[in-house]
Amino acid sequence: MQRRDFLGQVAATAAVPLGVGPLIRLAGPVAPAVADGARVNGWLAQFDRIGRTPGGINRVAYSEADLAGRVFTLDLFRQAGLTPRIDAAGNIIGRIEGTDRALKPIVIGSHIDSVTDGGNFDGPLGSFGAIEVARTLREQGTRLRHPLEVVVWSNEEGGVIGSKLAVGDFKSVDLDGVARSGKTIREGIGLVGGNVAALERDVRAPGSAACYLELHIEQGGLLERAGLRVGVVQGIVGLRFFEVTVEGVANHAGATPMDQRHDAVLAAARFTVAINEAILSEPGRQVATVGRVVPTPNTRNVIAGRVELTVDLRDLDAGRLERFAERFKRIGSEIGAASGTTFAFREFTSSAPAMADAAMMQAVESSAATLGLSRQRMPSGAGHDAQEMAHICPMGMIFVPSVRGVSHSPKEFTKPEDVVNGVNVLLGAVKQVDAL
Amino acid sequence: MQRRDFLGQVAATAAVPLGVGPLIRLAGPVAPAVADGARVNGWLAQFDRIGRTPGGINRVAYSEADLAGRVFTLDLFRQAGLTPRIDAAGNIIGRIEGTDRALKPIVIGSHIDSVTDGGNFDGPLGSFGAIEVARTLREQGTRLRHPLEVVVWSNEEGGVIGSKLAVGDFKSVDLDGVARSGKTIREGIGLVGGNVAALERDVRAPGSAACYLELHIEQGGLLERAGLRVGVVQGIVGLRFFEVTVEGVANHAGATPMDQRHDAVLAAARFTVAINEAILSEPGRQVATVGRVVPTPNTRNVIAGRVELTVDLRDLDAGRLERFAERFKRIGSEIGAASGTTFAFREFTSSAPAMADAAMMQAVESSAATLGLSRQRMPSGAGHDAQEMAHICPMGMIFVPSVRGVSHSPKEFTKPEDVVNGVNVLLGAVKQVDAL
Repeated sequence: MQRRDFLGQVAATAAVPLGVGPLIRLAGPVAPAVADGARVNGWLAQFDRIGRTPGGINRVAYSEADLAGRVFTLDLFRQAGLTPRIDAAGNIIGRIEGTDRALKPIVIGSHIDSVTDGGNFDGPLGSFGAIEVARTLREQGTRLRHPLEVVVWSNEEGGVIGSKLAVGDFKSVDLDGVARSGKTIREGIGLVGGNVAALERDVRAPGSAACYLELHIEQGGLLERAGLRVGVVQGIVGLRFFEVTVEGVANHAGATPMDQRHDAVLAAARFTVAINEAILSEPGRQVATVGRVVPTPNTRNVIAGRVELTVDLRDLDAGRLERFAERFKRIGSEIGAASGTTFAFREFTSSAPAMADAAMMQAVESSAATLGLSRQRMPSGAGHDAQEMAHICPMGMIFVPSVRGVSHSPKEFTKPEDVVNGVNVLLGAVKQVDAL
Repeated sequence: MQRRDFLGQVAATAAVPLGVGPLIRLAGPVAPAVADGARVNGWLAQFDRIGRTPGGINRVAYSEADLAGRVFTLDLFRQAGLTPRIDAAGNIIGRIEGTDRALKPIVIGSHIDSVTDGGNFDGPLGSFGAIEVARTLREQGTRLRHPLEVVVWSNEEGGVIGSKLAVGDFKSVDLDGVARSGKTIREGIGLVGGNVAALERDVRAPGSAACYLELHIEQGGLLERAGLRVGVVQGIVGLRFFEVTVEGVANHAGATPMDQRHDAVLAAARFTVAINEAILSEPGRQVATVGRVVPTPNTRNVIAGRVELTVDLRDLDAGRLERFAERFKRIGSEIGAASGTTFAFREFTSSAPAMADAAMMQAVESSAATLGLSRQRMPSGAGHDAQEMAHICPMGMIFVPSVRGVSHSPKEFTKPEDVVNGVNVLLGAVKQVDAL
């Protein structure tokens, strides 16, 4: 019933008994079949109202807004003709069977949860884009050889928790850890319809998927500055995450002479400046961020006796990560010794760099080329569920520009045309890898 | 009935129909009569249980612990034979009439409220010491020429609010400002038995008191390091207090290249380090503190888009304060320009330096000398209610050492012998100024 070339062009000559919505009947080969980008932009506009607060989108995992977002998303699955199920980790999964029963599924997806005071595109773009790809394939009567699975991962922003659990990485997830919503991960998973008792049973084994593709906004502004439309992700940087406790001595801000102080805020500030200088002292794309700073007692007229701060360190090279981590600890010791304070480092969940698969990169590149979209290969500085799926199958990612590279912010925005481009590149890439 | 020399020695020859407790009958001049120091130490030990939390003493103004502390204190007033009344600002006042109806009162006192996670001596020492002085005078049958007023000021740690209102400085108190307890000052004053509608009526006019004397712990460690027992306060430093808002751009901590950041935490850290360097660049006793730092969103994996921080700047010289304030603003502008952030300064309640009166300093010095206590003149780096009373009458203050100079901390501690010394110096000083 269908003629398909390697670009996945559709030449349907008859109605296909699949999918919802009007079927497109074409007389012969045409330009690459495209998804309904206006539809995805419409969903994103509707979704922007869920969890929107004066500070930004607050759809943190397991919150009421997250639950409302999941209800919205489940409805999109159903509209696309995908019967959604929830796996043990709380991930939402929809599946279309392929023509070849022997093949493993092509998995596509992203997440819908946000950071605190975040934006509406980081996650939802790739989630809705994947749903749209499945819907387009059904509406256009295109059946893939492989099964197609659309996954919306739960609690990505809390540390790719849903995908970690899905690939069986239990040791790096503390189920009793408290998520941003205030609930533990254990409670949260129950709340979204998962089942922590069944986590083991639901694990995706290595080789159980043909590949994983994820569409996401590019969060560094590299594409925009280069004037390019598409990023072909080479890999996802590794992460080292530390909580640093600086202990000084709380004392009176007026009465304590400057030379008698053990000021934890001042020591923490020196550390923040010094690790920034260290990270800039070597060429490369490594980044380090002090994002959280909590002094005690945090009062105007008291020299702080303690500061807790976080260091988030990332690079594509694991050896370099280790070198910087050691250097940061040395810097803390030196500043502590000089200021009569102590620095204690506690390392939290870290992740190794995850490299994209060469064939996946080629499929993305070729899909973009077919659509006439300019593109470049680039690393992902942000973590993504794709890094977890890379443990079990070949992985690829598609980036489209976020205006001024802003994300994790209420100012996060991706232009409608870039949304459309991203979904179409994903659609084309899926068709290509289906032919592999 | 009494012979009194300039040191206020008591030579009572008959029972005096005043006071509670046993009267001491002396046959002739003796060594300086002393207060019951063990009693004051006992009260402090009992008081330590009120508002004690794992983080320290939390007896912040208008809190339940503050109210409990006031109940305890009111009881001490009554035990001393002082019938306490609450003035419009919520200050507790007890009075003993003098023998000369024409004279204005000698006022002595301090406060009992604490900072967040503070200690038990900053305030209570001077408050209980003043009560003990009144009690000793009554028990020993000593009548002063002047009336004696014991005052426990309300909400000292929130910005000498009780004493500011008592001397009619209404413009620098925002009654609707929220105190550390979460209540507004207006609500708090009502809660402790004050009456904001009557504030004007209760104002102490200039010249309405003979003098004000306050005993307090020394909060800078200068006495301890010098091996001295008593500080004779020369004046209280002036304070400039700023809230600084650093605005950057919130963005992804992994994906945003280092050279594309507008990191408010990093800019705030540079500012903290730079104003510290500025304050150390000139000789003198000036101090500056960044005590409060609140980033937004304050999350590990987001570059902070905003930081609010406080700067607390103090010195005895108003001109120098102004010079540093201007220098800090320039530093903020420069760091902002260099880092793509903006610094906005908002100045809050500031106070001018308040000088102690020469006769008061002499009375304190002479009282300490009579008791054989080593002493030095010194400024107070901390603000005190005494700075407000300095607007209406001659002011003096007595410092005793706090171990390692620690205050505004759960580690704050003053040795029992220093407590006793302080109360006795106050008693002697009161007797001396009564003779002026």
